[in-house]
Amino acid sequence: MAALTLRTAAAASIALVSACASSEPSPSPSPVKSLSELLAASSPSEWRRLDPDNTLYMELPSGRVVIELAPAFAPRAVANVKALVRQEYFDGLAIVRVQDNYVAQWGDPDEKRSLGDAAKTLPPEWTRAATPDLVFDGLPDRDTYAPQTGFSGGFPAARDPASQRAWLVHCYATVGVGRDNADDSGTGAELYAVIGNAPRLLDRNITVVGRVVQGVELLSTLPRGAAALGFYEKPAQRTPIRQVRLERDVPDADRVKIELLRTDSATFRSIIEARRFRRDDWYKVPAGAVDVCNVPLPVRAIQGVR
Amino acid sequence: MAALTLRTAAAASIALVSACASSEPSPSPSPVKSLSELLAASSPSEWRRLDPDNTLYMELPSGRVVIELAPAFAPRAVANVKALVRQEYFDGLAIVRVQDNYVAQWGDPDEKRSLGDAAKTLPPEWTRAATPDLVFDGLPDRDTYAPQTGFSGGFPAARDPASQRAWLVHCYATVGVGRDNADDSGTGAELYAVIGNAPRLLDRNITVVGRVVQGVELLSTLPRGAAALGFYEKPAQRTPIRQVRLERDVPDADRVKIELLRTDSATFRSIIEARRFRRDDWYKVPAGAVDVCNVPLPVRAIQGVR
Repeated sequence: MAALTLRTAAAASIALVSACASSEPSPSPSPVKSLSELLAASSPSEWRRLDPDNTLYMELPSGRVVIELAPAFAPRAVANVKALVRQEYFDGLAIVRVQDNYVAQWGDPDEKRSLGDAAKTLPPEWTRAATPDLVFDGLPDRDTYAPQTGFSGGFPAARDPASQRAWLVHCYATVGVGRDNADDSGTGAELYAVIGNAPRLLDRNITVVGRVVQGVELLSTLPRGAAALGFYEKPAQRTPIRQVRLERDVPDADRVKIELLRTDSATFRSIIEARRFRRDDWYKVPAGAVDVCNVPLPVRAIQGVR
Repeated sequence: MAALTLRTAAAASIALVSACASSEPSPSPSPVKSLSELLAASSPSEWRRLDPDNTLYMELPSGRVVIELAPAFAPRAVANVKALVRQEYFDGLAIVRVQDNYVAQWGDPDEKRSLGDAAKTLPPEWTRAATPDLVFDGLPDRDTYAPQTGFSGGFPAARDPASQRAWLVHCYATVGVGRDNADDSGTGAELYAVIGNAPRLLDRNITVVGRVVQGVELLSTLPRGAAALGFYEKPAQRTPIRQVRLERDVPDADRVKIELLRTDSATFRSIIEARRFRRDDWYKVPAGAVDVCNVPLPVRAIQGVR
């Protein structure tokens, strides 16, 4: 039975001990609900579709990477990326850097292409005001890096009550705006996606512009660059970007048919608790906690479509 | 200059604000020492070599994966893995599962090969006693999952003063012993390596047997399996394992010539502080903390050899 190893651990059964957070793991096994059971019991209203005006398709030779943009946290950077996309700035550029356990990064390796109408500098959007209108569904457990962590509109996020600031955090699949040393040097013409352990040290130092919601494995499986910091030594080693398009500009027939579980839904809260107190035939010792980058963000095919 | 983005962030300059931990980031920029500067200033005695009796070479078509075993935490599992290796159990087997942002797993897909002299069951070594002889160099910052985290003999680890138990934690590159539901079902005939965000929920639920110290990218770049949990749908999609050997049984000329920074060294402590209070031309906001899976574990070519 060794080949079954870890199978149960990964997906088949997630323990749901309690819908209420407690600080200690339950001392005895309790009824089990798996992630798939929780999702099967969800209601249609708990799912949301991507906003075509804030979704990018990056077409690689291996397939499509779908990126959800986060205008609530980086309105200017999102607008600039969209301006670049609409003037087809990224088409024919390349993934220039893949550093193991860190990031895949893309843009213009020669830095010669005109940014056209897009801004050449942008003020930092590393954090934003934690205003009352900001949705923030907090996690109960302590985090190494932030006073509070949670989710905001589908994105892993953090908040500091003292400074009244909030920000998106760097988890696997987070997409950010590369910049040089100057605070205002990130325009969105160079972007990166996290492909390794959550590099939380980047939080509040760079503008997070969204996250990959489908196809991140097309980036994480790319050959690592052998030059410093994972840059490729030879141009031929780079992965070409066929094109990047805003979903709004893609014919409906060519759009992805996915929906995402709302992070302010009851089912999502149940998933968080099932992770914190995971106990099933395989899991013997529930962690009693979960960090913001270890909560699954479910995506599925739109129900009833095709 | 956009193509330089994140370059400094990743390697060129790490701020060293203070050798003493404080709970808040320094309010003003301070002298900078980069990781490479810290390493260049290290003394030879701060580095250690691999123990040939506790180092595995897994030879894949793409190259060699070097795994350091952890007998201090899993003596019986390590002994069993070594027994399997010495009877050439893994030769010709395969990597059977690669799940994105989780693990790569290898063993006998048909579960038919004899374990020979190796044990068919093993008692769990999920934790061990935190006895006084156990080296444990603690980190000062809070962790979501464990009362204390730190390093023990080069491995990321955790400790619970209440229960007086210690364990190795699941970071990127951690290697564990796959098991089925039964506590004693993990023999070492099936192993996995973490290739994504630290799956800390696995801690204390499975026997950690070591970590990949070179070549983890040969695993993390493998195509993801399309079947449930990342198993491959077709046998031809699996990556064959040419052989696994104990370093002791490999001629010296064929051994890797690497050394590892001791995690109980002053230089390693400086690296931890440099991470916690990272501030340089690129980093503007030091995190003021670092978690056990985000501390680099430096490896270099043995100085003066070849």
